[in-house]
Amino acid sequence: MLEKISHIILLKDFYGPLLTEKQQNVLNLHYEDDLSFTEIADEMNISRQAVYDTVKKAESLLEQYEQKLGLVQRFRIMDGRINELSSLLEGEVDQQAISQAVEISRELSRLL
Amino acid sequence: MLEKISHIILLKDFYGPLLTEKQQNVLNLHYEDDLSFTEIADEMNISRQAVYDTVKKAESLLEQYEQKLGLVQRFRIMDGRINELSSLLEGEVDQQAISQAVEISRELSRLL
Repeated sequence: MLEKISHIILLKDFYGPLLTEKQQNVLNLHYEDDLSFTEIADEMNISRQAVYDTVKKAESLLEQYEQKLGLVQRFRIMDGRINELSSLLEGEVDQQAISQAVEISRELSRLL
Repeated sequence: MLEKISHIILLKDFYGPLLTEKQQNVLNLHYEDDLSFTEIADEMNISRQAVYDTVKKAESLLEQYEQKLGLVQRFRIMDGRINELSSLLEGEVDQQAISQAVEISRELSRLL
């Protein structure tokens, strides 16, 4: 469940601006502020069913954007590579570390 | 003019999958294959006006996506930093170069 929540939050970070303001609000209240559907319904003066439908619709749109653009997948790969790079450069930097760092910077360039 | 073309091609690289197949086809024929509106109209069996409208609509959508997500702007910044990083690592790597490379890798991490 936690994994699902962090996945949706990541999708929202990348594609949130492509959603309507209402969709963004409802997702924020549910996933960032941890409000239940009923609490959101009370706060926004709409039915619980409307909240549910909005969340499902917004999640579906986020997944569709990810299928088309793959930004989250690319983010995960680049984030891993940049962490490796930092570890290499912050350790003892010998010739081998430099070669590996060069290789990572080339890979980052290809991934952009 | 060349600058406009390369800007549109870059936008298309990032956001192309969010356009319809027809919009993508028309942009490819115009910007990648360098066909005129009239040539595209002949090839696709539609009017020149329809080609023009499709190109303008597609360009406008691409610009709207960029305004919302800013992927091309981020790409340009990250591309510049990764090039700096490669130059540093492929030159003479002294302590100063390592410090600068660490700084760049931290910045890349923030930009992700």
